[in-house]
Amino acid sequence: MPEAEWSVEDIGWEERMLDKVDILDGGEGVALTLAGGARHRFHAIWLRDNAWDDKTRAPGNGQRLITLGDIPRGTHVSAARAEGNRLHLTFQPEGRTIAYDADWLLRHSYDKVSARPAGWTAPEIETWDASLGTNIPVADFATVGRDRSALAGWLAGVRRYGFGKLVGGPAEAEALLKVAALFGYVRETNYGTYFEVRTEVNPTNLAYTGLGLQAHTDNPYRDPVPTLQILYCLENSAEGGENMVVDGFRAAERLRAENPRGFELLTRHCARFEYAGSEGVCLRSRRPMIELAPDGELICIRFNNRSAAAITDVPYEDMADYYAAYRRLGEIIDDEAMEVTFKLAPGESFIVDNTRVLHARKGYSGAGSRWLQGCYADKDGLLSTLAAIEAQSATTAREAAE
Amino acid sequence: MPEAEWSVEDIGWEERMLDKVDILDGGEGVALTLAGGARHRFHAIWLRDNAWDDKTRAPGNGQRLITLGDIPRGTHVSAARAEGNRLHLTFQPEGRTIAYDADWLLRHSYDKVSARPAGWTAPEIETWDASLGTNIPVADFATVGRDRSALAGWLAGVRRYGFGKLVGGPAEAEALLKVAALFGYVRETNYGTYFEVRTEVNPTNLAYTGLGLQAHTDNPYRDPVPTLQILYCLENSAEGGENMVVDGFRAAERLRAENPRGFELLTRHCARFEYAGSEGVCLRSRRPMIELAPDGELICIRFNNRSAAAITDVPYEDMADYYAAYRRLGEIIDDEAMEVTFKLAPGESFIVDNTRVLHARKGYSGAGSRWLQGCYADKDGLLSTLAAIEAQSATTAREAAE
Repeated sequence: MPEAEWSVEDIGWEERMLDKVDILDGGEGVALTLAGGARHRFHAIWLRDNAWDDKTRAPGNGQRLITLGDIPRGTHVSAARAEGNRLHLTFQPEGRTIAYDADWLLRHSYDKVSARPAGWTAPEIETWDASLGTNIPVADFATVGRDRSALAGWLAGVRRYGFGKLVGGPAEAEALLKVAALFGYVRETNYGTYFEVRTEVNPTNLAYTGLGLQAHTDNPYRDPVPTLQILYCLENSAEGGENMVVDGFRAAERLRAENPRGFELLTRHCARFEYAGSEGVCLRSRRPMIELAPDGELICIRFNNRSAAAITDVPYEDMADYYAAYRRLGEIIDDEAMEVTFKLAPGESFIVDNTRVLHARKGYSGAGSRWLQGCYADKDGLLSTLAAIEAQSATTAREAAE
Repeated sequence: MPEAEWSVEDIGWEERMLDKVDILDGGEGVALTLAGGARHRFHAIWLRDNAWDDKTRAPGNGQRLITLGDIPRGTHVSAARAEGNRLHLTFQPEGRTIAYDADWLLRHSYDKVSARPAGWTAPEIETWDASLGTNIPVADFATVGRDRSALAGWLAGVRRYGFGKLVGGPAEAEALLKVAALFGYVRETNYGTYFEVRTEVNPTNLAYTGLGLQAHTDNPYRDPVPTLQILYCLENSAEGGENMVVDGFRAAERLRAENPRGFELLTRHCARFEYAGSEGVCLRSRRPMIELAPDGELICIRFNNRSAAAITDVPYEDMADYYAAYRRLGEIIDDEAMEVTFKLAPGESFIVDNTRVLHARKGYSGAGSRWLQGCYADKDGLLSTLAAIEAQSATTAREAAE
């Protein structure tokens, strides 16, 4: 998850020593002034709501014990005292004094100017194109299974690039489930816990043919989309069948640079997607091809020619420009300068952040065989596992330094 | 999924007979004029992209075989001919004539004026408050398991109200998995495939205590949130422990009516949520409490006092008003006029749309016991199953009429 741009790590230790604390506006807030001169204001209600005392937060699991309604209206600060990096604030009408960690407050400061362009990306993300080349996150299947630090390194690569490869795994059916179990949980769907990607006689999905597939995100007709996909190779002796990945966030950035209005049209209007290729299934969604958070963060790309349904939420006056932008986005995605290509060997697999990185495959045919297994999973588990390992490492490092 | 407001069903059969077709702007589009006088324009590129001939769409699974890049730039219509409700359009430079179903085109018309207020809801949704009373969607566990039509009726209720109850099921552990299997798939998380909701000695979550819980949506710290939750009762002889549900969409509508700026602040800025109550878990999200689609559709409510983290994405100047709106939203949610209350008996269960309907429970203690099992699932499966049954019923009805 994105962190605030401003961070206490950006400034020196002396500069962020707490110099003084002032009560503002009759107690409606306080201002912390640091030794370096920076000043950070906080509202009394925000401070009270974010208290970490054991009457506000459950000591064991950290969950908040009170609701906002339990905090009186008109809550204000009647006294404020700094003591090293501890801040003691007295709240009225409750008449309670609560201690705060000044570093925690500064890490959560919201008294800052933030003007970011629509389509900004989180700081832990780095967009890429073909020049990423072989710098992709690759790890050994067995190593990440036994070494938490190696696992964290690989997961951090997936978080950064939205993509990663595992090599040296067994060429065994269902091995992909072990990949998912490294960090989280499979998302079962109408395609099963996992699905077979190989040529079928009466395919319910064009993925189950030898056809080339344009770079796409999977299942945009599903809401929520599966946020991760794993593809695991069991056989790959056929001619062709290489995989390509493309960073959809970089593609959106290129479109924005070339054609700001086109970018805006693809973010402002919903597309529609549909899949009804097998019996008992009729999946439909209404979501934009380029999704932004309300403050403009780029959070999801949906692009899939096979399941794009009729677009009916774009006004007539904008449809021609919308289609021009849609066409251009596809051209950028198809541009070889955007793609990283590889051919999986049996026992190799890759994972994509399906909200960001598109994947494609070249057509295949002739002698030999191609058999992949695929499954979906969710990013919450991956990011949680990574954050927990990182937090544990930070604690261990701090304890070692003491 | 929302349908266009305009629908061919809104006007009589005679009025939607195709009267004539005109080529517009040198072939860049065509206009369909109906017998009733209504006129609908379509762009040539949109029409070509939405062709249903067997070179454009795979006959078996309906997936699109071509990409937008396969359709030449400058595509235009050189000839247009109506024949009953079939439309024959010739496209250049491809030189191909493709037939269209005029009814399909009219159902997908985008040549309409649409000015909806921020926070509009899809037509298949109906918001509610306590006056819904006992009119909630209730069905018998065994009946929906064997009767597709009864299942569709109950699922349609869940789609409309974001909530439904099942009664008469077995008081057996894991019976909740059978509820999920009626329409879709469990979403496994760090809480397991399902979880036990009963008093624990060292609870990792306040849900596992006897405390009352304010109405909330589950797991807002997860992205994507689980879009459905099932709670299944196995024992409930304790004093208290009633469940309440509140329509978060109605709460948002009330807030919008009372305080449009407050509503806007809660949609425009991201809140943050966090859960790190058990080892190896560190879940964080950055999403608004009231989420709108880019065109203003109300699509998700996230409200949970226990896991709300420090809000750092609201500018200092807006924070006081943001907190006032957050407080007011909580008051609306806590208002008894909003809630439907019930006490589950063993073998009874309920499902909520966790993107919309909040659930709460009253505190319990004393003699007796309370044991529920809960699990998460996703709405895509539910809506797909419902749409597939509805499509099958429509086909059967049409065949019977012929």
